[in-house]
Amino acid sequence: MALKVYADRMSQPSRAVLIFCKINGIDFEEIRVDVLKNQQFSPEYKAINPMHQVPAIVDGRFKLFESHAILIYICSAFPGVASHWYPGDLSKRAKIHSVLDWHHSNLRRGSAGLVFNTILAHNDSHHAYPQVVNQAEGILKKSLNTLETFWLKDGRFLVGSSQPSIADISLVCEIMQLQLLSEKECERILSPFKKVVEWIEDTKKATAPHFDEVHEFLFKAQKRIRTESGKDELKSKL
Amino acid sequence: MALKVYADRMSQPSRAVLIFCKINGIDFEEIRVDVLKNQQFSPEYKAINPMHQVPAIVDGRFKLFESHAILIYICSAFPGVASHWYPGDLSKRAKIHSVLDWHHSNLRRGSAGLVFNTILAHNDSHHAYPQVVNQAEGILKKSLNTLETFWLKDGRFLVGSSQPSIADISLVCEIMQLQLLSEKECERILSPFKKVVEWIEDTKKATAPHFDEVHEFLFKAQKRIRTESGKDELKSKL
Repeated sequence: MALKVYADRMSQPSRAVLIFCKINGIDFEEIRVDVLKNQQFSPEYKAINPMHQVPAIVDGRFKLFESHAILIYICSAFPGVASHWYPGDLSKRAKIHSVLDWHHSNLRRGSAGLVFNTILAHNDSHHAYPQVVNQAEGILKKSLNTLETFWLKDGRFLVGSSQPSIADISLVCEIMQLQLLSEKECERILSPFKKVVEWIEDTKKATAPHFDEVHEFLFKAQKRIRTESGKDELKSKL
Repeated sequence: MALKVYADRMSQPSRAVLIFCKINGIDFEEIRVDVLKNQQFSPEYKAINPMHQVPAIVDGRFKLFESHAILIYICSAFPGVASHWYPGDLSKRAKIHSVLDWHHSNLRRGSAGLVFNTILAHNDSHHAYPQVVNQAEGILKKSLNTLETFWLKDGRFLVGSSQPSIADISLVCEIMQLQLLSEKECERILSPFKKVVEWIEDTKKATAPHFDEVHEFLFKAQKRIRTESGKDELKSKL
């Protein structure tokens, strides 16, 4: 039985897992969990991931959620995944754990916080306070600066690697979520970080054509959100 | 040359690494980085961890930060660490990664956010907004409920284990930080979660006497903070 990947391509960690499976030729079945339709709260999905979040996987009788844990599991459980994605060398592997852990409270928190609260701003039911938006943008900018000056200082990819790891896919998919903001906002936030912008392109190339194919869904949403009526439609669903 | 652990016992992830090294008989040197004295911003420490956070380790020429990455590295690089701390079995290991990843945006965010913003409440320079405190408490209670009903449902320790893993030490040290709140507050937050309270005790016992010895520092701080003058002194340093 093929690996089952429960995902919504609107979710950045879902896209990371999907791209990773595709680039590594993993035999898997993608099962859509439409978050805007609240399908993550269905009893069927609760039995797979009681946290009501995507992505999750089912491999035989084994269930797992949290995208970093999933990526590491696939690297270890499926033969044929090239070692650069999750090196066996202890020091290299430890550095990948370090950047993946850093991601949670920094880039993830800033980027997801900014996108969520900007798109929902003035939607009373979600109480998007200006200081929350400002705080998220502050965390995001600081994180992008850390990527530029520290995590990308020694190589084309994170932690000084010449080839991508699971961390590159995870973090780049997170940054791609900024595409839901206006074009001007996106440019304002990203353009000061030249190495980050290059790294995004390098990661796209290294995972072509799957990166663009999996992100098509996001770009369709972007077009809808960048019109006022589309934004209202999205807000009404959230 | 012994492993160097840069830590401040006021920091919950620092305590997790110290307790873990002690219980496993790792030969290490503890180097205090006093966060209240801003020693994490010194040029010497910046060369070890440019993120200015504790803990960090130096093993020969290898430097590493982020406590989960450190715990995993020590399990893998030092012979003699019992396998229950970080099992070789792929499924068990994946579940430990899953709970460690979940921790960042849930228990860690709720607990650290509540303690930081409660102690700093009304300190103008830190802008502790009531809604930020409320949001943190909401995340914390939801996380404690998830521990009670999901992560601890199948065993004495996390993810159905009969013996502790690195995840138990990490998460229990986080919860111990709530001791900096008033006794009444601490009781109000924790007492509804019977399994969580038992699990804290089980983890303390499994890591005795090191757990209490490393936490002595926190309890001394608790005594100071629970007096108004002590709280003002702490605020002035933050």
